[in-house]
Amino acid sequence: MIIVLKKDAEEAKVEKLKENLVNRGLKLHLSQGEDTTIIGLVGDTTEIEPEQLQAFDVVETVKRIKEPYKKANRSMHPQDSVIDICGKKLGGNHFQVIAGPCSVETREQMVEVAEDVKASGAGLLRGGAFKPRTSPYSFQGLGSEGLKLLLEAKKATGLPIVTEIMSAAHLDLFDDVDVIQVGARNMQNFELLKELGKINKPILLKRGMSSTIDELLMSAEYIMAGGNEQVILCERGIRTFETSMRNTLDISAVPMLKSKTHLPVIVDPSHAAGIRFMVEPLTMAAIAAGADGVMIEVHNNPEKALCDGMQSLTPQAFDDVMKKVKKTTEFFGKVM
Amino acid sequence: MIIVLKKDAEEAKVEKLKENLVNRGLKLHLSQGEDTTIIGLVGDTTEIEPEQLQAFDVVETVKRIKEPYKKANRSMHPQDSVIDICGKKLGGNHFQVIAGPCSVETREQMVEVAEDVKASGAGLLRGGAFKPRTSPYSFQGLGSEGLKLLLEAKKATGLPIVTEIMSAAHLDLFDDVDVIQVGARNMQNFELLKELGKINKPILLKRGMSSTIDELLMSAEYIMAGGNEQVILCERGIRTFETSMRNTLDISAVPMLKSKTHLPVIVDPSHAAGIRFMVEPLTMAAIAAGADGVMIEVHNNPEKALCDGMQSLTPQAFDDVMKKVKKTTEFFGKVM
Amino acid sequence: MIIVLKKDAEEAKVEKLKENLVNRGLKLHLSQGEDTTIIGLVGDTTEIEPEQLQAFDVVETVKRIKEPYKKANRSMHPQDSVIDICGKKLGGNHFQVIAGPCSVETREQMVEVAEDVKASGAGLLRGGAFKPRTSPYSFQGLGSEGLKLLLEAKKATGLPIVTEIMSAAHLDLFDDVDVIQVGARNMQNFELLKELGKINKPILLKRGMSSTIDELLMSAEYIMAGGNEQVILCERGIRTFETSMRNTLDISAVPMLKSKTHLPVIVDPSHAAGIRFMVEPLTMAAIAAGADGVMIEVHNNPEKALCDGMQSLTPQAFDDVMKKVKKTTEFFGKVM
Amino acid sequence: MIIVLKKDAEEAKVEKLKENLVNRGLKLHLSQGEDTTIIGLVGDTTEIEPEQLQAFDVVETVKRIKEPYKKANRSMHPQDSVIDICGKKLGGNHFQVIAGPCSVETREQMVEVAEDVKASGAGLLRGGAFKPRTSPYSFQGLGSEGLKLLLEAKKATGLPIVTEIMSAAHLDLFDDVDVIQVGARNMQNFELLKELGKINKPILLKRGMSSTIDELLMSAEYIMAGGNEQVILCERGIRTFETSMRNTLDISAVPMLKSKTHLPVIVDPSHAAGIRFMVEPLTMAAIAAGADGVMIEVHNNPEKALCDGMQSLTPQAFDDVMKKVKKTTEFFGKVM
Repeated sequence: MIIVLKKDAEEAKVEKLKENLVNRGLKLHLSQGEDTTIIGLVGDTTEIEPEQLQAFDVVETVKRIKEPYKKANRSMHPQDSVIDICGKKLGGNHFQVIAGPCSVETREQMVEVAEDVKASGAGLLRGGAFKPRTSPYSFQGLGSEGLKLLLEAKKATGLPIVTEIMSAAHLDLFDDVDVIQVGARNMQNFELLKELGKINKPILLKRGMSSTIDELLMSAEYIMAGGNEQVILCERGIRTFETSMRNTLDISAVPMLKSKTHLPVIVDPSHAAGIRFMVEPLTMAAIAAGADGVMIEVHNNPEKALCDGMQSLTPQAFDDVMKKVKKTTEFFGKVM
Repeated sequence: MIIVLKKDAEEAKVEKLKENLVNRGLKLHLSQGEDTTIIGLVGDTTEIEPEQLQAFDVVETVKRIKEPYKKANRSMHPQDSVIDICGKKLGGNHFQVIAGPCSVETREQMVEVAEDVKASGAGLLRGGAFKPRTSPYSFQGLGSEGLKLLLEAKKATGLPIVTEIMSAAHLDLFDDVDVIQVGARNMQNFELLKELGKINKPILLKRGMSSTIDELLMSAEYIMAGGNEQVILCERGIRTFETSMRNTLDISAVPMLKSKTHLPVIVDPSHAAGIRFMVEPLTMAAIAAGADGVMIEVHNNPEKALCDGMQSLTPQAFDDVMKKVKKTTEFFGKVM
Repeated sequence: MIIVLKKDAEEAKVEKLKENLVNRGLKLHLSQGEDTTIIGLVGDTTEIEPEQLQAFDVVETVKRIKEPYKKANRSMHPQDSVIDICGKKLGGNHFQVIAGPCSVETREQMVEVAEDVKASGAGLLRGGAFKPRTSPYSFQGLGSEGLKLLLEAKKATGLPIVTEIMSAAHLDLFDDVDVIQVGARNMQNFELLKELGKINKPILLKRGMSSTIDELLMSAEYIMAGGNEQVILCERGIRTFETSMRNTLDISAVPMLKSKTHLPVIVDPSHAAGIRFMVEPLTMAAIAAGADGVMIEVHNNPEKALCDGMQSLTPQAFDDVMKKVKKTTEFFGKVM
Repeated sequence: MIIVLKKDAEEAKVEKLKENLVNRGLKLHLSQGEDTTIIGLVGDTTEIEPEQLQAFDVVETVKRIKEPYKKANRSMHPQDSVIDICGKKLGGNHFQVIAGPCSVETREQMVEVAEDVKASGAGLLRGGAFKPRTSPYSFQGLGSEGLKLLLEAKKATGLPIVTEIMSAAHLDLFDDVDVIQVGARNMQNFELLKELGKINKPILLKRGMSSTIDELLMSAEYIMAGGNEQVILCERGIRTFETSMRNTLDISAVPMLKSKTHLPVIVDPSHAAGIRFMVEPLTMAAIAAGADGVMIEVHNNPEKALCDGMQSLTPQAFDDVMKKVKKTTEFFGKVM
């Protein structure tokens, strides 16, 4: 961490700042320029926030050099992390497709979709039981009943299941869930992240709608700091000024994340686009950019879907996409 | 709600759509143009999401006419809501200043700051006991111990207290808190909002960093739909491309919210700017734009603050701002 | 275009509005609902702006149904446009790589880079002679001297050249340029666009840093309305809150643009990312998403580049990328 | 400027970098930490761009300490600049209201509006003759004919006129214009800025829709570097994700700009909001935040306005706002 002092910084105040820093156990390294003085901090600065130091009157600016995340940092763990989900691998050169409906609705729907996506080659089944909806008057999901239907679909097909948690209070209900998803709106629900750090189960952490890449990594760090290092990151589109799509898929986040962290990175083209016809090209782009998986919404009757029908593929359309996914992952050297 | 059909919409599919709509208890009103057909929906469309209808192949676009919030809607409640906090009024022509440190640190700090801000004219005391921090390695707040210190400061000064909740699991600890704050990161923590809807206590709901005005109102609606109508909205800056300030204060949100809802609207200039010298001009702008209150960070020793020191005012600086706040609110016809 | 009237719209004022609309040569189609009245406009609404109609007190909201662009609209021209540049085709299934330095610096540099990129398989040569720089104190480009050096490189290699224009006043100097580029900052320099509409030469139109997809198409329409229909669109990254990359590449813009327009769409991964290591994955993503070409910065000595060195590839690195580009375009059914 | 080297930077490459820096006439100041080495650059770094230095492999990051603008910098010119427009002062404690229609339409309209706004207390008259329109099919303004009508309105009322230029090629037509406006879309039309730097006339420079505060100051610097130091900056709303207003007024830009530059700063509440009812509260907020003026759209018949009718005030509504403007500027210590 580097502190640039103000040009006309008062001597006594600078001393007060230095004292504060030394008391934090840091070594200081001064560099006196013509009109700027720089203090380099040597030691563990992970716990220091630039904002704290900027409270000192004499400080012009503070710049962090090292990333504030440790366990998620690739420099600490150069090899790609590979997550094992009931024997299915995700990460490294292993590519997985997670497919299923936005929300769990009926037993028939879940089992039918599960069988369809399995037949097309999906490796994991998704489905929402607890649904974060903007409006209190929208369908809120079947809750624990939905989790039961998901487990029946798992039993029928053998596909591991991925589903979203909305509160740590529900954690007991997720015992048989294979991958717990944290949605974009809860990416900085730190109390939830802390609880998920205490369990031993893969966590699919979606990037918040307007969270930076570094904030996503800090949220992963919350889970990892608690002891659970099985975190899968998911880029699902960010909020921008563009209104012709639901969100703007930040495809650059894939190579950028992979340079910063060893954790696997997947893409959710369905939520990013919000429009059916874009799911295929964005899936292809995700594979080409180096993603370790994709998450695709499939519904056996999109027009009757209780949510997000406009972005769901029919099982037939999904099957067509999967044929291309298989060839394309192979072309880019991934194993499905 | 208006549905515009595609130019070449197949008759049979349009019938299927109409049937679906009628089954939802809606009356349809058709309008056949040269190359567009429009279906107007008559009835309660609050529970319908445009995305659901767009799943139908024949639908070109869906436009909501009425806002999806009811209880928060000014059209349902033309007079300004006035919230009573231990006898202090907020809303209508009543203006309140909420002041105090970012985080509760020690008994001395809290009591000292509380006495100072009271002497300067603040009506409520703020202080964070549970702190949402981007990094798991940053100071996380004193938790329940912090709540006790806040209550001691309340006892010493008589100022009602405002403090943030991060999980519904902590709700029991908030029994003696006067106003419960929901932070920007939890604005769409719907499980928390639902729980807050069940209690009888004012809720200070901060706008999410990248939440639209309508999403803020929908989150207020979550609380109100549960039965708790004492919601205070807070604009605290949104995330944009501009990097010279911490956030971009959306001052237009004040008159826009006041036209859409009867709920009181306050502004947090400290978090919006993130820089001390901007607190005063942004406070003045908030009053001028019609806000019902402001929330200002004050610390007796900003350089030793455990968080956000760079935006905290000293008690002396706060006192100077308050002298102007008193004159300015009076000029704009508000009562403090 | 659809006009929704306010619930309590005064009869006389509605008549005034209707009169205004009829005087514009439009037919009106009324639809009276329970609490909303809708006026559908039949006829050419291209010249009407929603804002104009919203000036009427009785109007609640105005919604455009048809896109306001005509010549760029795919519905008017279902086949992909293919642009011919000195015999090289771009668009349809023809993919082109445009490569070269950010700015033209010396004869040696230009000829050397041109020979290198040609050897690696680039189809067109780029290089900036007039440079739009944020600071007046930065290198502003060699101007007309730079254009001469570009033409020498063209002579030496046979590669058609692409270079940016910054003012219609310079148009005479661009007689021998093969493709004229309009930079992001000039995407809405309408006076320039009008002049480019009068010539007969391909125009490479870059999307503005914060322009919507529809605004990009409207700018293309400015050129096309003047008679020059040879427009190539270029996605080069948009401005968002994310700071770890220079810009956020909006990869979804590729399939979205291709659904809305027949014009070819290329991607500039160098400017989007602003960092060397991301050029290759973003190039792959662009191909996978359906782009018709890419524009890549190559410099024979990036450390001595007078601008944008940090995103320029060396000729060797470019050659590696091109080997993958050839295989990948072939895999996705494109011809180079 | 500070350069942070990579941890494992190769000695020989570091030497190459140092040589490059010394050749630019800079003195280097090294600071060797445990795992980071920092090079501080002493001398004039205005012409150096961080991107250039980041092209060097050994560079981890580059941080500018001093702002890259000189003439606009308050540190070079601590007193507020006051611009004199035909004897009317703008800046320092002088507040001006610029009012008039979005576009010049007829002689009657211009003279009528001019007389009205003068009677209400406006100091300058605005009106667009050359209009930047998103669509080539929208009304493009009356051009030179419009300028004549503006001059007639000036003759009739004595109000100095402010009008927008869209191309340096039109400069001759602006001889009798008192203040030349550069619109948001042309804020980085550098060729135009350079030409405006050569004349001796106040320039009203509007902030680009997604330009940072520093970019605005760099564009002002373009004009000032040419010799014309009469630049008035205008905040007119930025583009964000929020859709309930046309733009998001960045009110914080007012105090932030005033801390960075000595140039006067005005606000355009009409374009920022795009909705009539918000013009008054945003005008009040602008005054309270310290703006030196506002620019308000007034039309004698908004429903017949050829553009932007929905945000124009009638002369009566403007008169009401002006009564409050007079009292409020006085309250905040400004002179009109």
